[in-house]
Amino acid sequence: MASKSLSDEIAKIAPSTMADVVELRLREYLKKKAFKPGDALPKEVELAEALDVSRNVVREALSRLRMLGMIETKKRRGMILAQPDILGGFERVMDPLILDRKTLMDLFELRFVLEMGLADVLYTRMTDVDLKELEQIVNKEVNQVQRPFKVKYEIAFHGKLYQMTRNDTFTRFQNMLLPVFEYVATEEAKLNGEAKVGKITHRDLLELLKTAGPEDFRQGMKEHLGPHFERISNSR
Amino acid sequence: MASKSLSDEIAKIAPSTMADVVELRLREYLKKKAFKPGDALPKEVELAEALDVSRNVVREALSRLRMLGMIETKKRRGMILAQPDILGGFERVMDPLILDRKTLMDLFELRFVLEMGLADVLYTRMTDVDLKELEQIVNKEVNQVQRPFKVKYEIAFHGKLYQMTRNDTFTRFQNMLLPVFEYVATEEAKLNGEAKVGKITHRDLLELLKTAGPEDFRQGMKEHLGPHFERISNSR
Repeated sequence: MASKSLSDEIAKIAPSTMADVVELRLREYLKKKAFKPGDALPKEVELAEALDVSRNVVREALSRLRMLGMIETKKRRGMILAQPDILGGFERVMDPLILDRKTLMDLFELRFVLEMGLADVLYTRMTDVDLKELEQIVNKEVNQVQRPFKVKYEIAFHGKLYQMTRNDTFTRFQNMLLPVFEYVATEEAKLNGEAKVGKITHRDLLELLKTAGPEDFRQGMKEHLGPHFERISNSR
Repeated sequence: MASKSLSDEIAKIAPSTMADVVELRLREYLKKKAFKPGDALPKEVELAEALDVSRNVVREALSRLRMLGMIETKKRRGMILAQPDILGGFERVMDPLILDRKTLMDLFELRFVLEMGLADVLYTRMTDVDLKELEQIVNKEVNQVQRPFKVKYEIAFHGKLYQMTRNDTFTRFQNMLLPVFEYVATEEAKLNGEAKVGKITHRDLLELLKTAGPEDFRQGMKEHLGPHFERISNSR
């Protein structure tokens, strides 16, 4: 294990604004009172009085929860607790240009881990129609070995695999990670030339899905993504 | 594939507030201008003028970005773009009591997928010290088969596995998913009695880590978590 600097080991004290404090208090209150989606929240002015802060600060904190989908405003009913968007916050910050190298490497690996682990769910849910659609993607891909075509079909093929799991959260999460994977692979290629291509192609993976079980498919996926994983892993 | 209702197939039009619109414009602006962490942002009053909205609305939108860690205020320099917290938004909404059943099932499966996929990263990074620490956890666990002790050691064992990957994003993400896993497993147990226990125990997994390769470990993990996965998968 690489030795870490002190600033990696001790978390920085982030300066809190009033909105940070009020947001935390509101979330604690909602949890303590076991608010459920649909329950009406106290009015903004009541919250400001109870917290002894300005309405502007309460509005800021409520706006944050609104962004996460945790609260909605309904005609006549006012503010209610809502089903949050589980990946909304993640989606907003998922930009390779503003994330640091360590986080990008972590996310690169996370995609690899997820793809190595999806076989069992995939085999439980996939249909014959899915396999036909996947075959159409593979057929279109033939001979497109140059970027950006390569990237387009890479995303089409793997995106279809995620969709075949019928797990919307997983699918959306993985689709968010694909640009990070492409970004890191492209940066790596600029530094050290194109990675070795995995021995197993998309067509081979399709054949495994048609004729073999989850263990063989997983082994195929490992060989397909392995060269990327190995060189990134070595460079950490 | 189960047939879906119309409301599952067509996304609802969420009513936008002014803060929603301004937040989106700001994120588009930061992206278009390729702002990097450390770059100074225009002042609040300048943004309000350029967008032709009130300063309160701009402050709300900025407060949202501040919550995600995307902006910070520095003495003398004013607002700057910062390294966002990749999982901060996710962490805030990760509460089993406010998520709907479908999302909880998705997250339950996501943990399973991640745990099935972690073997290769684990074997690349784990150390002898890690294995000793894992052994201590397993030794303490013996004979603790009742909740809540069972849950405590479940979290200690699996949490240690995540930490052994040296991937902080993965570790934090998986630790956030553990309460969902416990919640769903407990709810399921109330309805249909305790799940069959997997044939492979934590001690067996430890022995596999010591003496076998990633493929065998993965097969062990599948048998360890499989009974949970199967009954949840069947009930979808």
